Amino acid sequence: MVAFLDVTGMARWVSETGVEHVLADLVARLRADFRRWPEFDKRPRVASHSAVGVIELMPTADRSTYGFKYVNGHPDNPARGLQTVTAFGVLADVASGYPRFLAEMTLLTALRTAATSALAATALARRDCTTMAMVGAGSQAEFQALAFRATLGISTLRVWDTDPRAMAKLRANLAPLGFDVAVCASGAEAVEGADVVTTCTADKTNAAVLTDAMVRPGVHLNAIGGDCPGKTELEATILDRARVFVEHEPQTRIEGEIQQRPADFPVTELWTVLTGAAPGRTSEGDITLFDSVGFAIADFSALCHAYEATRGTGYVSEIDLVAEPADPKDLFSLLAPAMVTV
Amino acid sequence: MVAFLDVTGMARWVSETGVEHVLADLVARLRADFRRWPEFDKRPRVASHSAVGVIELMPTADRSTYGFKYVNGHPDNPARGLQTVTAFGVLADVASGYPRFLAEMTLLTALRTAATSALAATALARRDCTTMAMVGAGSQAEFQALAFRATLGISTLRVWDTDPRAMAKLRANLAPLGFDVAVCASGAEAVEGADVVTTCTADKTNAAVLTDAMVRPGVHLNAIGGDCPGKTELEATILDRARVFVEHEPQTRIEGEIQQRPADFPVTELWTVLTGAAPGRTSEGDITLFDSVGFAIADFSALCHAYEATRGTGYVSEIDLVAEPADPKDLFSLLAPAMVTV
Repeated sequence: MVAFLDVTGMARWVSETGVEHVLADLVARLRADFRRWPEFDKRPRVASHSAVGVIELMPTADRSTYGFKYVNGHPDNPARGLQTVTAFGVLADVASGYPRFLAEMTLLTALRTAATSALAATALARRDCTTMAMVGAGSQAEFQALAFRATLGISTLRVWDTDPRAMAKLRANLAPLGFDVAVCASGAEAVEGADVVTTCTADKTNAAVLTDAMVRPGVHLNAIGGDCPGKTELEATILDRARVFVEHEPQTRIEGEIQQRPADFPVTELWTVLTGAAPGRTSEGDITLFDSVGFAIADFSALCHAYEATRGTGYVSEIDLVAEPADPKDLFSLLAPAMVTV
Repeated sequence: MVAFLDVTGMARWVSETGVEHVLADLVARLRADFRRWPEFDKRPRVASHSAVGVIELMPTADRSTYGFKYVNGHPDNPARGLQTVTAFGVLADVASGYPRFLAEMTLLTALRTAATSALAATALARRDCTTMAMVGAGSQAEFQALAFRATLGISTLRVWDTDPRAMAKLRANLAPLGFDVAVCASGAEAVEGADVVTTCTADKTNAAVLTDAMVRPGVHLNAIGGDCPGKTELEATILDRARVFVEHEPQTRIEGEIQQRPADFPVTELWTVLTGAAPGRTSEGDITLFDSVGFAIADFSALCHAYEATRGTGYVSEIDLVAEPADPKDLFSLLAPAMVTV
């Protein structure tokens, strides 16, 4: 039998453990896995593009465990009551090839994306950060805010979104949790005085939700929404002023903000900063940019953490996904008892 | 909610419908989909190899539906009571990216592999076939036999396997269903007088379970087990005497029997025979070879057929795999009711 953590189970596990506690645990797990980056099988995600969106498979493996995530990105979905991104994932044993764990990953992807952003910020943002601008107040926003509070202590947010209801939703969700949330009238107003700027918008275009003039020295840019060929969020000249950090360089060249720059544009893989092999922030005045597109290893870490944390609890059920004939060479025996010939 | 056809549901659906009836329906569905081959997204499977086996993801899509299969291949599994191959698959809407159907595919892969073999044989084997040799009596064997009876009327089998218990199992399963099963003492004995030869063995090596001397003019070779780099079943010189048919040429060049021959070795894609664009068998004396490795489109066809045939029946259940917040931009609302902050 395969363990199954469904949406209800995931939501209950996260809520009852405490979402900031889960985020902090995920940051720790991600740090540990990013520090052993060379041990993982790394390949570009397998994307199937259509006119309205993309469906992707994101596999990776270490020596003992294989994992993959199914995820879609459909920017027009919210207009018809559907989510932009949904996901699920699977872990399997490398030794047997048998799947062991199936989990919803719509919630878990939001958590791992936020935890990865926070992990990067612990290495790249200034130590004295208090204020984060959030450009984009969609499904990812609350998770980012909580992850940055759990790791950097940020509790003041300045929000901008083209959808006023999304901003109102963000404030309604976060103010009761102790955040100071300022709803702004523009992106420029939101970034005023911010130590960290998170961009997380869904338009599938080369947009410039952040312009060069809005970026001041010392800021850390957490760029989440530019994650697909033809989909970027930053005015390109920002890249030339910033020190740019990425997850897996070959994938980010295709999908990240740096798709706006030549193939030899200098970037640093985040894992090398976390092992100490490469420097992160080098001065108070650095503009640091985490050009995040999401990589399979982060999903793997999140799935492993969720599996280990919920194993044997009431949050998971078992599903009958793998046929188990008594004689492994007699798969046909599963049909025999009731078989009708024609 | 996502519809879920688990192992029990799949086994019941197939048994209660009649396995030969399901196989015949699958052949028809496969024929229709192979005939519209250019409409599908085609790419090599995404394989993750380890010392003991392989785990693969096999995606494809047409304009409206996306599908993928997870499948492993671990030849040493039966020795420890596990199956060589297990699988599951998913269908999703291209328009929304939402998954719609999750199904076990260990049984369904066996059915679709047999149905694909039978489909190829209807185009490639002689009309007057009565006898099939089966080299390899593992999990796939009964399905092959039933698919060939359902389409070509073959009911005489000559079996060889290095494992006597596997041969006994095959006879015990098929004799009660009206097959005449001869258990042979060697591969050479099995192929004597056979009109079709099916090879389906699991060793992950360049084997020669069929040698050149065993192949006589007029025979159709249904080569199933050579499906992975370094894993072939036929003595290479057989290829030079045969007219070779494949599923998706770029994949078969890497994984099929033709990996033993140069990149310009002539092959014909099966779908072109089914549309009438290319000839199949041209004379009684042709040696035809279906160099099958399994392709994602066949899994897609099988998943679509299983989804349509079981939809709304008691064979399927629903699982809570996709988060559905009332406001699609408020994923966080799923956590709020019970959230505990730390």
